[in-house]
Amino acid sequence: MSKRYEFTPQEVERLNVELNRQLGPEFLHQRTGPGGKFTYIEGQSAIHLANELFGFNGWTSELRSLTVDFMDEHDGRVNVGVSAIVRITLKDGTFHEDIGYGSMENSKSKAAAMEKAKKEAATDALKRTLRMFGNVLGNCIYDKNYTSRMQYVKTPGLPQLDIKNLYRDKR
Amino acid sequence: MSKRYEFTPQEVERLNVELNRQLGPEFLHQRTGPGGKFTYIEGQSAIHLANELFGFNGWTSELRSLTVDFMDEHDGRVNVGVSAIVRITLKDGTFHEDIGYGSMENSKSKAAAMEKAKKEAATDALKRTLRMFGNVLGNCIYDKNYTSRMQYVKTPGLPQLDIKNLYRDKR
Amino acid sequence: MSKRYEFTPQEVERLNVELNRQLGPEFLHQRTGPGGKFTYIEGQSAIHLANELFGFNGWTSELRSLTVDFMDEHDGRVNVGVSAIVRITLKDGTFHEDIGYGSMENSKSKAAAMEKAKKEAATDALKRTLRMFGNVLGNCIYDKNYTSRMQYVKTPGLPQLDIKNLYRDKR
Amino acid sequence: MSKRYEFTPQEVERLNVELNRQLGPEFLHQRTGPGGKFTYIEGQSAIHLANELFGFNGWTSELRSLTVDFMDEHDGRVNVGVSAIVRITLKDGTFHEDIGYGSMENSKSKAAAMEKAKKEAATDALKRTLRMFGNVLGNCIYDKNYTSRMQYVKTPGLPQLDIKNLYRDKR
Amino acid sequence: MSKRYEFTPQEVERLNVELNRQLGPEFLHQRTGPGGKFTYIEGQSAIHLANELFGFNGWTSELRSLTVDFMDEHDGRVNVGVSAIVRITLKDGTFHEDIGYGSMENSKSKAAAMEKAKKEAATDALKRTLRMFGNVLGNCIYDKNYTSRMQYVKTPGLPQLDIKNLYRDKR
Amino acid sequence: MSKRYEFTPQEVERLNVELNRQLGPEFLHQRTGPGGKFTYIEGQSAIHLANELFGFNGWTSELRSLTVDFMDEHDGRVNVGVSAIVRITLKDGTFHEDIGYGSMENSKSKAAAMEKAKKEAATDALKRTLRMFGNVLGNCIYDKNYTSRMQYVKTPGLPQLDIKNLYRDKR
Amino acid sequence: MSKRYEFTPQEVERLNVELNRQLGPEFLHQRTGPGGKFTYIEGQSAIHLANELFGFNGWTSELRSLTVDFMDEHDGRVNVGVSAIVRITLKDGTFHEDIGYGSMENSKSKAAAMEKAKKEAATDALKRTLRMFGNVLGNCIYDKNYTSRMQYVKTPGLPQLDIKNLYRDKR
Amino acid sequence: MSKRYEFTPQEVERLNVELNRQLGPEFLHQRTGPGGKFTYIEGQSAIHLANELFGFNGWTSELRSLTVDFMDEHDGRVNVGVSAIVRITLKDGTFHEDIGYGSMENSKSKAAAMEKAKKEAATDALKRTLRMFGNVLGNCIYDKNYTSRMQYVKTPGLPQLDIKNLYRDKR
Amino acid sequence: MSKRYEFTPQEVERLNVELNRQLGPEFLHQRTGPGGKFTYIEGQSAIHLANELFGFNGWTSELRSLTVDFMDEHDGRVNVGVSAIVRITLKDGTFHEDIGYGSMENSKSKAAAMEKAKKEAATDALKRTLRMFGNVLGNCIYDKNYTSRMQYVKTPGLPQLDIKNLYRDKR
Amino acid sequence: MSKRYEFTPQEVERLNVELNRQLGPEFLHQRTGPGGKFTYIEGQSAIHLANELFGFNGWTSELRSLTVDFMDEHDGRVNVGVSAIVRITLKDGTFHEDIGYGSMENSKSKAAAMEKAKKEAATDALKRTLRMFGNVLGNCIYDKNYTSRMQYVKTPGLPQLDIKNLYRDKR
Amino acid sequence: MSKRYEFTPQEVERLNVELNRQLGPEFLHQRTGPGGKFTYIEGQSAIHLANELFGFNGWTSELRSLTVDFMDEHDGRVNVGVSAIVRITLKDGTFHEDIGYGSMENSKSKAAAMEKAKKEAATDALKRTLRMFGNVLGNCIYDKNYTSRMQYVKTPGLPQLDIKNLYRDKR
Repeated sequence: MSKRYEFTPQEVERLNVELNRQLGPEFLHQRTGPGGKFTYIEGQSAIHLANELFGFNGWTSELRSLTVDFMDEHDGRVNVGVSAIVRITLKDGTFHEDIGYGSMENSKSKAAAMEKAKKEAATDALKRTLRMFGNVLGNCIYDKNYTSRMQYVKTPGLPQLDIKNLYRDKR
Repeated sequence: MSKRYEFTPQEVERLNVELNRQLGPEFLHQRTGPGGKFTYIEGQSAIHLANELFGFNGWTSELRSLTVDFMDEHDGRVNVGVSAIVRITLKDGTFHEDIGYGSMENSKSKAAAMEKAKKEAATDALKRTLRMFGNVLGNCIYDKNYTSRMQYVKTPGLPQLDIKNLYRDKR
Repeated sequence: MSKRYEFTPQEVERLNVELNRQLGPEFLHQRTGPGGKFTYIEGQSAIHLANELFGFNGWTSELRSLTVDFMDEHDGRVNVGVSAIVRITLKDGTFHEDIGYGSMENSKSKAAAMEKAKKEAATDALKRTLRMFGNVLGNCIYDKNYTSRMQYVKTPGLPQLDIKNLYRDKR
Repeated sequence: MSKRYEFTPQEVERLNVELNRQLGPEFLHQRTGPGGKFTYIEGQSAIHLANELFGFNGWTSELRSLTVDFMDEHDGRVNVGVSAIVRITLKDGTFHEDIGYGSMENSKSKAAAMEKAKKEAATDALKRTLRMFGNVLGNCIYDKNYTSRMQYVKTPGLPQLDIKNLYRDKR
Repeated sequence: MSKRYEFTPQEVERLNVELNRQLGPEFLHQRTGPGGKFTYIEGQSAIHLANELFGFNGWTSELRSLTVDFMDEHDGRVNVGVSAIVRITLKDGTFHEDIGYGSMENSKSKAAAMEKAKKEAATDALKRTLRMFGNVLGNCIYDKNYTSRMQYVKTPGLPQLDIKNLYRDKR
Repeated sequence: MSKRYEFTPQEVERLNVELNRQLGPEFLHQRTGPGGKFTYIEGQSAIHLANELFGFNGWTSELRSLTVDFMDEHDGRVNVGVSAIVRITLKDGTFHEDIGYGSMENSKSKAAAMEKAKKEAATDALKRTLRMFGNVLGNCIYDKNYTSRMQYVKTPGLPQLDIKNLYRDKR
Repeated sequence: MSKRYEFTPQEVERLNVELNRQLGPEFLHQRTGPGGKFTYIEGQSAIHLANELFGFNGWTSELRSLTVDFMDEHDGRVNVGVSAIVRITLKDGTFHEDIGYGSMENSKSKAAAMEKAKKEAATDALKRTLRMFGNVLGNCIYDKNYTSRMQYVKTPGLPQLDIKNLYRDKR
Repeated sequence: MSKRYEFTPQEVERLNVELNRQLGPEFLHQRTGPGGKFTYIEGQSAIHLANELFGFNGWTSELRSLTVDFMDEHDGRVNVGVSAIVRITLKDGTFHEDIGYGSMENSKSKAAAMEKAKKEAATDALKRTLRMFGNVLGNCIYDKNYTSRMQYVKTPGLPQLDIKNLYRDKR
Repeated sequence: MSKRYEFTPQEVERLNVELNRQLGPEFLHQRTGPGGKFTYIEGQSAIHLANELFGFNGWTSELRSLTVDFMDEHDGRVNVGVSAIVRITLKDGTFHEDIGYGSMENSKSKAAAMEKAKKEAATDALKRTLRMFGNVLGNCIYDKNYTSRMQYVKTPGLPQLDIKNLYRDKR
Repeated sequence: MSKRYEFTPQEVERLNVELNRQLGPEFLHQRTGPGGKFTYIEGQSAIHLANELFGFNGWTSELRSLTVDFMDEHDGRVNVGVSAIVRITLKDGTFHEDIGYGSMENSKSKAAAMEKAKKEAATDALKRTLRMFGNVLGNCIYDKNYTSRMQYVKTPGLPQLDIKNLYRDKR
Repeated sequence: MSKRYEFTPQEVERLNVELNRQLGPEFLHQRTGPGGKFTYIEGQSAIHLANELFGFNGWTSELRSLTVDFMDEHDGRVNVGVSAIVRITLKDGTFHEDIGYGSMENSKSKAAAMEKAKKEAATDALKRTLRMFGNVLGNCIYDKNYTSRMQYVKTPGLPQLDIKNLYRDKR
């Protein structure tokens, strides 16, 4: 939670620049929510970006709370809403916290509803908290000028797998 | 929470000047609330400004509490009100706290109401707390002389994307 | 909460003088309350003055408690009363605490009533606590000799915006 | 709460003398209470005197508790009684605590009653605790010999405002 | 609470002598209680004596508890009994604690009864605790030989006010 | 609570001798209790002796608990029983604790009963705890050989007041 | 929980590279869940990979909570849902937390249902938390480009046991 | 509670010898209890012996708990049973704890029953705990060989008072 | 819990190799559970292996919780399910935690059911946690390739007792 | 509780030998319990042995808990069962804990039953815990070979009192 | 609980060898339990072995919890089941914890049932925890190869008492 390492001045300079950059189109996805179509990035991309920017031992994440707001059962269907609060701490002790939400409606299985809502809440909170560190960690997708302009930027084809570089089981 | 770094005298001088400046028109938005039309800045702008002024590792934010004030259900419609208290701490330990509010009325979905109210409360508290550090972080929009004069200042056209500078997926 | 920096003897001397001064008329507003007409200063002015006197990293504020005293509903109208206790700490650990109040009566919306009452209470407590540090932070407006004499002092015209000095979006 | 600075021997000597002095008539007011007419000083004067004697960073005040003793409603009228306990700590750690009281009877508005009672209690506790430090901070007004003799001492005319020395808005 | 300063050997010697002295008649008052006539000193005198003996920064007082033992209402009249426990600590950490009592019977106003009982309890506890430090701080009035002999000692006339030495408002 | 000062070897030697001495007859009083006539010393004497032996800053007393064992009301009469536990700590950290008791039966006033029982309990506990330090602080009066022999020792006449040495009001 | 060892710069460099690699096909399995077919890795593989990458004393795991969300019994059948939160800490104090889920539906045995759900939740949380450290610890299987391409990569035959290297009982 | 002083080797040697000695007959009393006649020493003797052996500042006693096991009322008579746990700590931190008991049956006064039971329990616990330190502090009276042999040892006549050595009131 | 000793580089190297080895057939047992036949190792073997690998003072185990999930009684038969969480810490502070389960169904004796379920849960948790440290401590038996191949490896005959080396009673 | 002194190597050697010895017959007593005749040592002997072996300041005892398992009343008779847990700590911090039991059945007096059960439990726990340190502190009496052989060892006659060595009252 | 002494390398080497040895037949006993005949060692032997191996000040034991799982009464008969958790800590801080069980069924006396169950649970937990340190402290008796082979090893005749070496009462 507290300071484990100091950033060097070079690291601070590099990160202030990198974190201020906006994301390429290959990171962007779109979904339709209650407020219409909106742009988001996947949880795995957010994690990948954080590891790329801060290094694997440069950031720490903590599930501060996970609250079941309601679980209603009617006629064998279940509605669940869950809130999560996540804290992300950099190696020099800088941290942010934010809330995420997950829900499932009209599920036949209580366990499936609970699982989806809880995991979605944790991942959503992770992403909303990472965004506090700058554009490249997601703050840019809340900037309507950026997202509307990105609609006209072409997404590159997906890269091939570099099979030789796969991590193999040595057992 | 406590002091992690000291500000240098140059940083203090620069920040006392920068924080006292007022915002350009491109940061301002208007909405109609219970008390009529009012000016606000978006959450993503507030975060952007804090990172620009203090640096990515110069400020820390903490969700001190998140309280569901009420959740009423009538005839399948849900009303929710949520309060959040946020603390923002600079790298030398200076901090402020303030309250934010989020709500949704007449929602058909409990989960949607809860999600909107909670996230709105957290973001509102973040903005109200940042404003305590000075004009440029939002205190200026509570100054009626400033907001009324800004009505006659032209907003510049939105900038183009610098596509070459986008952050690309290296996988 | 504890001592982060010591004041220099020059700072102490300057602040004992500055804090003892009385406010110019451009800071004063009037409203009618249960006890008749009274003079007040706006929250944004109080924050501005604290930043000007102590510097952005010279003071810290903390919402020690926020209590809903009552929330009554009758015939679809809501009455709410909220108390806040704020602590303000200077960089050398000196602090004061005081209580503020916020309320709304006869509101059609529970959320609107709650939001107004809570934010009003937090800001009122901030102002009442700042006043403990001296005349210039608001103690002067409780001095009836001062306020009655100020009725005859002319308020200067509002200053023009210095548009060149606005803080611009660099994205 | 603990010792932040030591007093110099000169400060101790000066304060033992100053604190032992009695107040001039311009600080005294009279009100009629349940036990008849009595002499009091205003909250703003007590704060002013503490700042003048100890310096703005020489004393700290803390609201240790704020208790609603009762809130009764009959026929649309509200009676409220509130107790506050305040602690005042000097810069070398010396402190006192005392209780103050605030109340309102027969109020039509619950919020107004609550606000008046709570603020009155906090201010009353502040004044009763300050008096523990000596005559000049209010202990003298509990000395009946002093108050009866002061009835015959003339109050000076109120001073003029020194308009040139007002603190002006630099925005 | 803990040791802030050590007493010098001279201070210890002086205080052991001074604290062992008995009070002059001008400090004594008489009242009739449930056990007949008894001698007491006023709260303001006890505070004055403590400041005179220990210096303004030589003693600290703390309201350890304040308990409403009962509050009974019959036929619109209120009876209240309140206990207070006070701790007084000298600058070298020596401390005593004792209990005080306050009450009001047959009051028409609940607020007035509560206020009187609570303040009386706090002051009574202060006086009973101060007495633990020696005769001059009140232990002498529990010595029946002393009080009966004091009935025959003449009280001096009350002193004149030294108007030139009053503390004047410099605003 | 912990060690504040060490005793010098001389102090230890002197106190081991002094504390082992028995009290002169002028300290002894007699009362009739449930178990017949018994000898006691007054609270003020016990305090006086502790100050004389240990010095005003050589001992500390603490009210560890104050428990109302019962409060019964029948036919407008009140019976109350109260237990107190006191801790007395010498300047080198040596301490003892014991229990004291106070009660009032058949009282017409609840407040009077409570006040007497609570104060009596606190004083009784103080005396029982002081006795743990040796004969001269009260342990001797539990020694039946001593008390029966003391019946035949003459009490000296009460001393005159040394009026010149009274502590006078300097205000 | 806190830092036990620092990583050497060589370790950091090696791990940033290794953790960024994607898994060979022999680590991948497929199952059908509520959202269709999906790819996963086994718990034993995740543990094996963590030990291979960080060393046996390079990582620590902690079951922060284990919550039975519901246990319903109908007609002798039991449904159970369990959430687990795991924290994994590297030797330099870097850590992540995430949630896992386990459930069993329609079980005839309450114990069997509970056992499966609890163990599944703990293992699921372990895997989801490990993935936060990079692709090779499981983040890659959330990357749809990767998993769809891996369908066309051949899994090698399972290796023979190296019987000579088995760990033998020496008793 | 912790170590305040070390014993010197001489002190340890002396105390191991002294504590192992058995008590002279003048310390022994007999009473008839539920299990027949038994030998005991008085509380005041136990305290006297502890002070003589360890010195006034060599031992500390603490009332760890005081529990009312039952208080039964029938036909205006009261039965009470109280347990106390005492800890006695020597100056080098060695300590023992034990339980004591006090009771009163068939009392007409609840206060008298409570007072006797509580004080008896505290004193009994003190004595049972002191005995843990060796024969001379009471362990010898649990040795039936010793007590039966002591029946034939003559108790010396009670000593005269040394009136010259009484501690006199100097006021 | 924290670091008691560091591993030497040689120890780390040896343990990374040893822990990665797979178990010989003499450690493997088979049982039929709800999911069919499965391979396990005995608790005593797991303890033996941990002592052999880490040394008797190289590892620590802690029962973090033991929870009775349910205890149902029907027709004189008892069903019990118990969960245990164990933490195992190496001498340098590395630790893992996992859950184990124990149950008994259809028991005639509540005590027997409870005893079996609780001990089984503790041992199961111990084994599942040890496995986290590597193949040789049990992770290998979750690897289906390994367990299926081991079916064709011959178990050696059980060794003779070395009677001369037994530990004999020296009393 | 923690280490106060280290044992010297000589002390350790001596104590390992002494603690391993078995008790002479003069320490053994026999009683008939629910499981038939059994051998025990008295509480006073156990205390005596501990003081002889460790020295008066070499061991500490603590009553960790005292629990009334049940108190049943039928037809004016009382049955009570009490458990005690004791911890005994040597001067270098080594400690053991064990449980003891006390009970009384069919008592006419609730106080007598409670007193006997509580004291018996505390003493039983003391003895069972002391035995953990070795044969001579009681572990030997659980060894059936020893106790059966001791039946044929002659108990020496009880020693005479050394009256000259009794500890005499010096008052 | 924490490290008090380090083991020397010689001690570690000796203990790793000694702890790995198996027990001679004179330590083994057999009893019939719910799962048929089984081998056990007595509590006194386990304590003896621990003292012999680690030295009297080399190990510490702690009763972490003692839980009454159930106490049922039917027709004047009592069934009780008790669980205990014990922690054993070596002098260098290494520790283990395990659970033990005790019960009594069909007892006529509640106290006897409680006493047996609680003591049995504590001793069982002690033995199960000691076994974690290696074969010689009991882990060997869980090894079926060992126990079945031991059936054919002859138990030596019980040794004679060395009467000259008994510990004699010196009083």
